[in-house]
Amino acid sequence: MHAKSTHRSLLVVGSVALDDIDGPFGLHRDLLGGSASFIARAAAYFTRDVAVVGVVGDDFPKQHLDDLSAVGVDVTGVEHAPGETFHWVGRYSDDLSSRETLDTRLGVFASFQPKVAPRHREASLVFLGNIDPVLQLDVLEQTHGPLLVAADTMNFWIGGKRAELLRTLARVNTLLVNDEEARQLAEEHNLRKAAARILTMGPSSVVIKRGDAGALLFTGEGVFGVPALPLSDVRDPTGAGDSFAGGFMGYLAYAGDLAPDTIRTAMITGSVMASFAVEKFSVDGLRGLTTAAIQERFDAFSELTRFGSVRL
Amino acid sequence: MHAKSTHRSLLVVGSVALDDIDGPFGLHRDLLGGSASFIARAAAYFTRDVAVVGVVGDDFPKQHLDDLSAVGVDVTGVEHAPGETFHWVGRYSDDLSSRETLDTRLGVFASFQPKVAPRHREASLVFLGNIDPVLQLDVLEQTHGPLLVAADTMNFWIGGKRAELLRTLARVNTLLVNDEEARQLAEEHNLRKAAARILTMGPSSVVIKRGDAGALLFTGEGVFGVPALPLSDVRDPTGAGDSFAGGFMGYLAYAGDLAPDTIRTAMITGSVMASFAVEKFSVDGLRGLTTAAIQERFDAFSELTRFGSVRL
Repeated sequence: MHAKSTHRSLLVVGSVALDDIDGPFGLHRDLLGGSASFIARAAAYFTRDVAVVGVVGDDFPKQHLDDLSAVGVDVTGVEHAPGETFHWVGRYSDDLSSRETLDTRLGVFASFQPKVAPRHREASLVFLGNIDPVLQLDVLEQTHGPLLVAADTMNFWIGGKRAELLRTLARVNTLLVNDEEARQLAEEHNLRKAAARILTMGPSSVVIKRGDAGALLFTGEGVFGVPALPLSDVRDPTGAGDSFAGGFMGYLAYAGDLAPDTIRTAMITGSVMASFAVEKFSVDGLRGLTTAAIQERFDAFSELTRFGSVRL
Repeated sequence: MHAKSTHRSLLVVGSVALDDIDGPFGLHRDLLGGSASFIARAAAYFTRDVAVVGVVGDDFPKQHLDDLSAVGVDVTGVEHAPGETFHWVGRYSDDLSSRETLDTRLGVFASFQPKVAPRHREASLVFLGNIDPVLQLDVLEQTHGPLLVAADTMNFWIGGKRAELLRTLARVNTLLVNDEEARQLAEEHNLRKAAARILTMGPSSVVIKRGDAGALLFTGEGVFGVPALPLSDVRDPTGAGDSFAGGFMGYLAYAGDLAPDTIRTAMITGSVMASFAVEKFSVDGLRGLTTAAIQERFDAFSELTRFGSVRL
């Protein structure tokens, strides 16, 4: 894919973490996690100009950053701070349909102040991972007029820093959230109405990630929906939404335009990367994919959703 | 649509009920409900040869049957028995995302013994609504080699009459269930694996109705998925799955073949009719639709799911 890429650059700001994950496939400790890890890895399949801004602690295995570098991700913006890396401990139900957080140790992430190096300030696309909206805005202030700003957020910020979040959203083009976050942000249960309300807050597009119910895209022009590809083997849903975001942003960087049809295609590449991610633990499902394998799964989405028009 | 119809006949066996429904739009009493009511009304838009076998009690307003007759449904197979009509009382949560059954009075439905009149025994398509699987099989014994037998079932029969249900399923071509029913029947949480298991029980296709997550079709040839159309105004989800079944069966009767692509199209017409049904109470959302309105919503599903192929 790189040969055709227009090489628009993507800057990803988010968490880099270590996860302990328990569930039907046993306890796995110290897995690479964090939104930026999944987003960057997924996006790197579509554009070779991906940079991460994040922070890790003393305990973070150097190998993980080497792995990201090896697939072309610029990790020079990942700060090393004294202390423990952000650590999430969670347990999935036997059917993987729900999870509970057993422990969250923010470690060095608690005092994370993202610094965008001069070489990253001209990024064409910026993805603001799920961090304090004050920091998200601060990142934007450090960049120089990106073509597209996309962002994620979560219940903690929607409830606790609403005013700050609204200030950030005013400068966000695409918001990617799950359905509960969309409902909470819009204070409206109906997803269509919720999306319409969010479209008045700044974003010109809202992507609602719904796990095994697929994903929806709302813009001023209408709505696009894609079902999730039903998979036989799902081992770890962690990072599915971030992998979606990575495939989505990576494709936009690759395509080089933000036309409505390009964004629809990006919804599919996002779905493709999420479907790979959940088949293995951590970012393992995103490792070593060939262009042919990605194309094959894209085509599987075409086949999944194909039907003819009729004249009744 | 009737002009092009091949007029394959559809026989629907199921409940005809009166519902009391409470929720965010207030309490509505004595609404027409029951699976056969929704299925027949939805199907009647696609083929004029729809007959219902069911039972009602002394309290059943004649107007409801007259209304069905007026849209071409043959209600001569609806038996009148002394006693109360099947009555369901339910309450939806404020956001319509869940409901609880407050009361179920089976009334005359408790001793329902479906009798298929000679004029209905040659039906091309038979839909076995959610009744005792022993009765479903008995209905099949009364018919003469229909081209397609479709059936619904529910947790009560899956748990309580599993052996009988499996005997019936052996003669069913298409099973239409929701995701929990599919999981319970297959004893498998993963939907893809659950569908694969059900496909070994007799049916050559399994339709999984997932409410606002859309619907999936599994066959030996693969999987087809359609998202639900996000709607601004949902007033009453009752009968959505049955309206889907009606649009699905009606289109198959209309199209006159059971080719894989025809079944995919039927998944869309099913989704179309479900989307109309939930916008109003009872069968009101299915009343008075023009061919143009149905076509417009079909086209909305085309637009909802449209994306181009790419060569990565």
